[in-house]
Amino acid sequence: MPVSQQLILFVVTMCTACLSTTAAAEDALRERAKAAGLKAIPYGVQHVADNPVTREKIELGKMLFFDPRLSASGVISCNTCHNLGTGGDDNLPTSVGHGWQKGPRNSPTVLNAVFNKAQFWDGRAEDLKAQAKGPVQAGVEMANTPDAVVATLNSMPEYGERFARSFPGEDDPVTFGNMAKAIEAFEVTLVTPNAPFDQWLEGNDGALSDGQKAGLVLFLDKGCIACHNGVNFGGQDYFPFGLIKKPGADILPPADRGRFEVTKTATDEYVFRAAPLRNIALTAPYFHSGQVWDLPQAVAIMGTAQLGKELTPEEAGTIAEFLHSLTGEQPEVVYPVLPVETDATPRPRL
Amino acid sequence: MPVSQQLILFVVTMCTACLSTTAAAEDALRERAKAAGLKAIPYGVQHVADNPVTREKIELGKMLFFDPRLSASGVISCNTCHNLGTGGDDNLPTSVGHGWQKGPRNSPTVLNAVFNKAQFWDGRAEDLKAQAKGPVQAGVEMANTPDAVVATLNSMPEYGERFARSFPGEDDPVTFGNMAKAIEAFEVTLVTPNAPFDQWLEGNDGALSDGQKAGLVLFLDKGCIACHNGVNFGGQDYFPFGLIKKPGADILPPADRGRFEVTKTATDEYVFRAAPLRNIALTAPYFHSGQVWDLPQAVAIMGTAQLGKELTPEEAGTIAEFLHSLTGEQPEVVYPVLPVETDATPRPRL
Repeated sequence: MPVSQQLILFVVTMCTACLSTTAAAEDALRERAKAAGLKAIPYGVQHVADNPVTREKIELGKMLFFDPRLSASGVISCNTCHNLGTGGDDNLPTSVGHGWQKGPRNSPTVLNAVFNKAQFWDGRAEDLKAQAKGPVQAGVEMANTPDAVVATLNSMPEYGERFARSFPGEDDPVTFGNMAKAIEAFEVTLVTPNAPFDQWLEGNDGALSDGQKAGLVLFLDKGCIACHNGVNFGGQDYFPFGLIKKPGADILPPADRGRFEVTKTATDEYVFRAAPLRNIALTAPYFHSGQVWDLPQAVAIMGTAQLGKELTPEEAGTIAEFLHSLTGEQPEVVYPVLPVETDATPRPRL
Repeated sequence: MPVSQQLILFVVTMCTACLSTTAAAEDALRERAKAAGLKAIPYGVQHVADNPVTREKIELGKMLFFDPRLSASGVISCNTCHNLGTGGDDNLPTSVGHGWQKGPRNSPTVLNAVFNKAQFWDGRAEDLKAQAKGPVQAGVEMANTPDAVVATLNSMPEYGERFARSFPGEDDPVTFGNMAKAIEAFEVTLVTPNAPFDQWLEGNDGALSDGQKAGLVLFLDKGCIACHNGVNFGGQDYFPFGLIKKPGADILPPADRGRFEVTKTATDEYVFRAAPLRNIALTAPYFHSGQVWDLPQAVAIMGTAQLGKELTPEEAGTIAEFLHSLTGEQPEVVYPVLPVETDATPRPRL
């Protein structure tokens, strides 16, 4: 064999070996991610407790989700603060509600919320139907009452018919509780599958860029994975914000003691549910205080506060690059045509 | 022929004659409605001046219509006050805008607005693209500035790409004027064809109930038709509110002098554009002051104020029954997924 042919053979052999090594490394990283508890968003409608999810109920829930008449003013709907066009939140530090009041905490995304262990930053609602009752009644949000909501719904025959079909066999289907169940049924559909990360996790090596893979390695190596795991990269457990070092009062305002307000337990002071990171690139500003707009900056703050690690700007940027791979396919929602008001419909209370 | 057979023949003959008479009367009413200028909503996308309506532009316009980031606060979109789920308006006396301020006049529906001669209650915008620039800048509505809007749009690459495709060949496609043109292109699609009245006008005798046909006869006989004609049953010309007798100050507040504010002409005092009546059953409360919730009551007020005729409650109710036949097929709109903000996006100014 001439030298030139030997050289070609050598190069081909080396490249094949190199590719095998790369493929092996890719698989190893994939297995490591899975072993650490990261999961793709599952297909199909999730089961939720005590609430069969039917097409009728999903459609009713969609109407309720978009209906501003669930608020006292007739101005604010669920979608006002959980806007399905902007990542399922409102992209504000804290939401604006009834009378232009500002809410106490950043609005969490409704997307993939079904995969969270509990709802709200402090986990005070055990599921989506419990959560749905909160903002409707909160004085700084929709400022309504269950009785007024039921009166509003009962005033419109189409809602009556839709509740009856959504809750068959019930004598009195138009209730505040059933409103919340219908909204939960709709929210169960608000999942964002097929993010680049999910595609990669399922075997498509090319779905993540090299930078994103490097970010995943850092995400695992630095310890982010300890709190941000599972389908939602978080939302599963509670941790003190500032576990190692408390952030400044702008980011962690002293007056909001987090889960302590729920449990009245000293160890729950400044404890919050680990934020789910799905679609995080769509939902700035960050943290319960909504004071940080820049994702790499938020990552760096987490490193310092939770892990005691000063990430370099490059590291924080690389992790953020990985987090962009968690943006999935957004739900396609046909905007609902809502039932028409009648003389019996309570008037807006502005 | 036995008597019984003669009787049957007699009955059949009479019934046939009777049906012919009814059919003739139906056709006569139809011809009278057409002669009076009433028209069905036409099929197809309407041509608008100086703004080719392309699919690209419609889609961009839809995004802009639903994007709350066109407002200073990031809270209010076009759809907030022109809600496509509730007849293209907000079902409030007057709208709620920036800082929870109340607007001066009732929000008109965006549905079929393309068929109006001019926009706003006083016709101060010659078309939809001129109209679209108003609320974005109004301090009590979206409270934004053209420069800030352009900065917001330019900060999101997806908007840049969509403007470039919607306005091909332009060096600087992301402008406030082009924002308005794209919104106009979307609004051109917001028509509601095939209302029962339209189906009847096109020959389907059964599309209107007998009561609605009686209401149409009253609508023509009493003179409503004088101002409420054309495709939109109004929206074509200007008339003094209280032509014969001024309504009370709650319905016609003295401080709002209508078109006089536009033309500064004495004869335009308390002059308003005749309200288009399409989908009127969906858009209570009524009048520019938004103080009347009941449609028969609104009809009766019009009879007194504009025609000098005291309609009986039965007459007003029958006309209102006819007006319900103007509710057409509502647009089916897929809720848009909006471009993602960047570090360059101006922050909400609450």
